[in-house]
Amino acid sequence: EETPAVPSSVSSCVSCHSADGNPLVAGVPILAGQREDYLQSALKSYRSGYRKGGMADVMGVYAKELSDSDIEEIAKWFAAN
Amino acid sequence: EETPAVPSSVSSCVSCHSADGNPLVAGVPILAGQREDYLQSALKSYRSGYRKGGMADVMGVYAKELSDSDIEEIAKWFAAN
Repeated sequence: EETPAVPSSVSSCVSCHSADGNPLVAGVPILAGQREDYLQSALKSYRSGYRKGGMADVMGVYAKELSDSDIEEIAKWFAAN
Repeated sequence: EETPAVPSSVSSCVSCHSADGNPLVAGVPILAGQREDYLQSALKSYRSGYRKGGMADVMGVYAKELSDSDIEEIAKWFAAN
């Protein structure tokens, strides 16, 4: 079926994590069905630079732009998938 | 049914992540069915101190003890659950 319309905050995640959180890219975590509170804390760690090295630096670039409400929206979306 | 016998390297994970990777503890990620390569890279990030702050510091204490083969065994176990 058609890729579900993702909330705007999720659009930048799709290229690696796919719209439903089941990634096609190697080394990228499955987000679908993950704990909402964990997804929030992981995103905040990336945003604040508490996760470094390799892919974490890539995530840091994306996460820097996110507001708290973006983070809530993204965590809710993938947890529900 | 009985908790499955976990490999020795997994025993220290069970208290927070449960034996099958579906945690009862809040704020702790679901590991069951996660990508094996991602689990390995996350454990190595904790071991090398590339993840800091809050629960990441707790994980760092555990991960410091792990050898590469422990990490492989743990990642394989939870990915298969």
